[in-house]
Amino acid sequence: MKLLVINPNISQDVTDLIEAEASRSIRPTTELSMATAPFGVAYIETRAESLIGGYATLQVAAQHYRQYDAIVVAAFGDPGLNALREIMPIPVVGMTEAALMSACQQGGRFSIIAISQRIQAWYRECVAAYGLGGRLASIRALDEPLQHIGQVQENQGERLIELGRRAVEEDGADVLILAGAPLAGLARSVADQMPVPALDGVTCAVIQAQAMADIGATMPSAGSFAAPPCKPCQGLPEALTKLVGRQ
Amino acid sequence: MKLLVINPNISQDVTDLIEAEASRSIRPTTELSMATAPFGVAYIETRAESLIGGYATLQVAAQHYRQYDAIVVAAFGDPGLNALREIMPIPVVGMTEAALMSACQQGGRFSIIAISQRIQAWYRECVAAYGLGGRLASIRALDEPLQHIGQVQENQGERLIELGRRAVEEDGADVLILAGAPLAGLARSVADQMPVPALDGVTCAVIQAQAMADIGATMPSAGSFAAPPCKPCQGLPEALTKLVGRQ
Amino acid sequence: MKLLVINPNISQDVTDLIEAEASRSIRPTTELSMATAPFGVAYIETRAESLIGGYATLQVAAQHYRQYDAIVVAAFGDPGLNALREIMPIPVVGMTEAALMSACQQGGRFSIIAISQRIQAWYRECVAAYGLGGRLASIRALDEPLQHIGQVQENQGERLIELGRRAVEEDGADVLILAGAPLAGLARSVADQMPVPALDGVTCAVIQAQAMADIGATMPSAGSFAAPPCKPCQGLPEALTKLVGRQ
Amino acid sequence: MKLLVINPNISQDVTDLIEAEASRSIRPTTELSMATAPFGVAYIETRAESLIGGYATLQVAAQHYRQYDAIVVAAFGDPGLNALREIMPIPVVGMTEAALMSACQQGGRFSIIAISQRIQAWYRECVAAYGLGGRLASIRALDEPLQHIGQVQENQGERLIELGRRAVEEDGADVLILAGAPLAGLARSVADQMPVPALDGVTCAVIQAQAMADIGATMPSAGSFAAPPCKPCQGLPEALTKLVGRQ
Amino acid sequence: MKLLVINPNISQDVTDLIEAEASRSIRPTTELSMATAPFGVAYIETRAESLIGGYATLQVAAQHYRQYDAIVVAAFGDPGLNALREIMPIPVVGMTEAALMSACQQGGRFSIIAISQRIQAWYRECVAAYGLGGRLASIRALDEPLQHIGQVQENQGERLIELGRRAVEEDGADVLILAGAPLAGLARSVADQMPVPALDGVTCAVIQAQAMADIGATMPSAGSFAAPPCKPCQGLPEALTKLVGRQ
Amino acid sequence: MKLLVINPNISQDVTDLIEAEASRSIRPTTELSMATAPFGVAYIETRAESLIGGYATLQVAAQHYRQYDAIVVAAFGDPGLNALREIMPIPVVGMTEAALMSACQQGGRFSIIAISQRIQAWYRECVAAYGLGGRLASIRALDEPLQHIGQVQENQGERLIELGRRAVEEDGADVLILAGAPLAGLARSVADQMPVPALDGVTCAVIQAQAMADIGATMPSAGSFAAPPCKPCQGLPEALTKLVGRQ
Repeated sequence: MKLLVINPNISQDVTDLIEAEASRSIRPTTELSMATAPFGVAYIETRAESLIGGYATLQVAAQHYRQYDAIVVAAFGDPGLNALREIMPIPVVGMTEAALMSACQQGGRFSIIAISQRIQAWYRECVAAYGLGGRLASIRALDEPLQHIGQVQENQGERLIELGRRAVEEDGADVLILAGAPLAGLARSVADQMPVPALDGVTCAVIQAQAMADIGATMPSAGSFAAPPCKPCQGLPEALTKLVGRQ
Repeated sequence: MKLLVINPNISQDVTDLIEAEASRSIRPTTELSMATAPFGVAYIETRAESLIGGYATLQVAAQHYRQYDAIVVAAFGDPGLNALREIMPIPVVGMTEAALMSACQQGGRFSIIAISQRIQAWYRECVAAYGLGGRLASIRALDEPLQHIGQVQENQGERLIELGRRAVEEDGADVLILAGAPLAGLARSVADQMPVPALDGVTCAVIQAQAMADIGATMPSAGSFAAPPCKPCQGLPEALTKLVGRQ
Repeated sequence: MKLLVINPNISQDVTDLIEAEASRSIRPTTELSMATAPFGVAYIETRAESLIGGYATLQVAAQHYRQYDAIVVAAFGDPGLNALREIMPIPVVGMTEAALMSACQQGGRFSIIAISQRIQAWYRECVAAYGLGGRLASIRALDEPLQHIGQVQENQGERLIELGRRAVEEDGADVLILAGAPLAGLARSVADQMPVPALDGVTCAVIQAQAMADIGATMPSAGSFAAPPCKPCQGLPEALTKLVGRQ
Repeated sequence: MKLLVINPNISQDVTDLIEAEASRSIRPTTELSMATAPFGVAYIETRAESLIGGYATLQVAAQHYRQYDAIVVAAFGDPGLNALREIMPIPVVGMTEAALMSACQQGGRFSIIAISQRIQAWYRECVAAYGLGGRLASIRALDEPLQHIGQVQENQGERLIELGRRAVEEDGADVLILAGAPLAGLARSVADQMPVPALDGVTCAVIQAQAMADIGATMPSAGSFAAPPCKPCQGLPEALTKLVGRQ
Repeated sequence: MKLLVINPNISQDVTDLIEAEASRSIRPTTELSMATAPFGVAYIETRAESLIGGYATLQVAAQHYRQYDAIVVAAFGDPGLNALREIMPIPVVGMTEAALMSACQQGGRFSIIAISQRIQAWYRECVAAYGLGGRLASIRALDEPLQHIGQVQENQGERLIELGRRAVEEDGADVLILAGAPLAGLARSVADQMPVPALDGVTCAVIQAQAMADIGATMPSAGSFAAPPCKPCQGLPEALTKLVGRQ
Repeated sequence: MKLLVINPNISQDVTDLIEAEASRSIRPTTELSMATAPFGVAYIETRAESLIGGYATLQVAAQHYRQYDAIVVAAFGDPGLNALREIMPIPVVGMTEAALMSACQQGGRFSIIAISQRIQAWYRECVAAYGLGGRLASIRALDEPLQHIGQVQENQGERLIELGRRAVEEDGADVLILAGAPLAGLARSVADQMPVPALDGVTCAVIQAQAMADIGATMPSAGSFAAPPCKPCQGLPEALTKLVGRQ
């Protein structure tokens, strides 16, 4: 299968991290392509930045989806995921959603380990929107300003492991989710230092994207995820105009 | 006070409807300005269209907010509301949220009367995101394709009233919300045919915007609605770049 | 508009505090009248005291409502609010409900800062009854016995500010509500020492009462907030007998 | 044990129905005393009437509790229950709460069969306040105005049985609760016509009151059901003054 | 009435503790019989052990129920309770459920004091399955490995009391539940050292079993707790075969 | 990978249906083995039967797990799933859980199409236990007694398709789950007659089992899904004794 992984923010070094981990996780028969948001911010921590990143992701998806079998939205918090799922005629998978659904199959409650204090509210709302707030044991986050978003693993690795351990011991987590594309690949290297399964959002997303393709479910012609009714539009990029106006 | 009302979709006739109702609802001392999304779709029914409309609204707000005391996002479903509230240094009010908060002060459970079947899932998720799913008695919607979005009141007025009556009798609604900017002004004309209060989203939004300004709450310097941390960005319109990059 | 603000407890000095803050918050065209419960307790901390205060408020309202456009129940916890809303033919607004609805329009989660430990359970149940338990970040309260209920602001001001700061930093509050009529006016004076908006229940209540009057919603003739069916009664004060028995 | 059953409304014929059923349900060693609210309404359907009934019940309890081991509040909807439980030094049991707790031990979800349409909203809020909204299959109610509250069983018996059957077949109820003191004794006579257990609120209340006495739990000196802190009061009946002011 | 109390684990010394407390709690007219699981584990802390204990309890119940009026499942967590309630033609009561239902009638929120850290997740899921997660203030547990399950009261008594006090002071518990059959009888001896009612699961279970028998509800012929449809089976013990196959 | 699929009921013809669909769904490199419960009932509709089936599944798993990389519990309702997940040192996946997690990645709300009326309560409780009750649009079920459990697809195919269509149109389902092992393979053949994706529990389970193995998460050494503490046991089958007693 051909898989398009879209990084909703503009950081090429984060795209590289995602690509490295995705390459390690896919099956040999899966062809991986990467795309980076052409506009937006360096990394996404807030609802405002998620709106920008979501719209950028929608544009990238509209341009390229025809060559692919599935799309992964590769920022934790899943910017634009539901919008893409509605309008794309192929499966769309999000890092957060895929990690949550995988975590739920490995334990009762999960904790999210995040890269900044500010990011927590957005993550919590995201988990709640999926209806899984009752299974969220906690969100724990680094509390220092990030210097280099592409190097957070090296700089903060020990601290992230410590946060994970406390989530298990103090918050009752059965599974940990190392959240945020800048942490892509970390779970793989710290697994043996964690007392419970530690999931990588990128890993979960590409594996669930493959799973969704395997399930082979048809696209809906009814319900709230059928393609939106065709309607007049203006001022949109050409590829998006074609999708919205079905031209 | 100076109030900017932004229509997140591209329909000028809907903007006119909103303006007419907003003008009837504001205090004499409130100065009203209207803006229409420069790009997007004719009307918003889906998560995908809401993402487009939200981003357009964010752009309009970034360009113009400096001259205003408060902003109203004038599409039911509140596209981009939380993003704007985070990033704008003035109060931002949404049609749905304002209507729900007003409805809660007039009864126990409310029903939403909507203009299309498809729109219901998005509205339901919106109410749930505000934490008020438990007070939603029902959403009832017209079930015919809309011909002219600016004329839905004339064409479907009787049917909308009937939906409202059934929401009260069969679903236990204490308050009705006539949802969607295309219905702006309808509540005013059908109030006496409804057995319970019928709220207009535009009316509620401008009145709550005035109330938020009256309360005079300061802008947060902490918490998840403080302005997002300044960070590198690229490819954004100039006004938005200034907000995101604090330049 | 003519606004009747009822203090459900017997403390005249608390009524004076409420009146002072209400006077600062209303529009010039709003005429303010105050009433104090003729029987009951010095301040309300428990479910039992709320029942007494609610019944006293109902009696006061029944006696005087004919001269007013709206009523405010001015004790946090809203004693008797739903009862009054059912039976009064004019809008009735509560301090807690108005503060919660205003807080929800300014952030994601709110914390309540309260004047006694004991009062917390009643407040939490009140928030839950409005369906907003999911948005309550925390309730934090003074933990010393109150000496003079009318002087709690002077005696405990610094401590209240400190509780607010901790609610933001440790509990994730986006908005603070300074709860309890004895704190009326405090938010105005400490706003600049708080990292997030700090709301005053009295301020919110009179502003929302004005908003409800502005919305101009009709009184329900159906649903669970229509006037209760007329029925036999005995032993009630004359004004209440007239309301219940419709005489 | 000595049990005081208080009817929160003024209808002596309803008190008689309650007494008859309570007498059939208690153990031989339980001494039963009845009291009827000295003021209030003929029967309670609304939040306003519940406030009146709750205050009347509090007064009756304050006057008489010293001679009893436990108190039953004998109106469905439990007017004043939590207030009495806080302030009385003996166990207090409510018809609704006792019926719900008994129903939960006999099945997964329960339905309430009620005597009027209007009463449903208040009942639903009551169930939700106990945290059991998730186990409420439905509330079904008679839809004709009640002529004689004391004769609703004879006049509407067949209709009540039919409502119960539909709750089981259409709503998924595992247990039925025949709600409202005017139905006291009905469950006993229709049990064999119901496909699932049909519970009588009066029966459940007196049996749970005996159970609470058997458990012999001590009264709390801490927590939110400890006796309210002693505080100044005025204008209250003598017995209530003694309780509130601990004189 | 004749009451069968089944210990779902294999520890005879725990059965003896249960019997001693049950004997102190029942009415003189209740005849008590004890049974111990013929297979399984020494004490139940996990979902896996609960499945084993539940199946053992089902077998014991199938063998002996004909001589009894009601059954008590006497392990906290209620292994197999719903299964037994479905298939037994007599009332079946569980320690956890009975304690929760009793606690709800004595306060707003309750805490559970447990004998091991590991046991907490299972208890929390059990409370949630009864729909009462919203009333659970906390679970607090001993944190040392248990040496002798039958002697945990003597060895850990002081520590258990301390956990209870902290649940009241720090977690807001109005009622405490001393959980786990190995604590049977403890509540009785520590009641005067606890600031709120402390409930014993065994006490509550036998008293609620008597109450369910007193209520005299009929067995359901419809709904999800009617006896399961008769169907082919194989390999089951004789008594269970008779129940499942109705032979 | 080597995958063990356990049918928790005794029907060999259902095992054959499961095997046929599993064989169609697995990757070429996955080796499939089937096992049928050695004792229990013909098909599982109730909590009692689920307890029996869960214990049988635990026994089968204990005997055979050493030769496998993952286990699938192949009855809708997931008998014993959490118990197996705790005690097995390899991933364990359930039909219901896997279908729900897959459905959540394809739409907002899902409906379950079931083979008998009676089965609905158990399914609803199962969905709720996973914390996903809020995303369940409805359960719709055949309402005739099942003659031959292995032939329900042929006999009732049209009726099942009709139930699915109504779930989409009337209940708002975005995804359908054809529930119950006796329907294994049906989704594949009716996909083109359904307006939304129709998921097969067996398909989802084997694909998610492969995904869990791909994710490669380690087994927990802490948290509530670590292997239960070793403890004394008696009377268990040899393989289970080894697991429980770690011998």
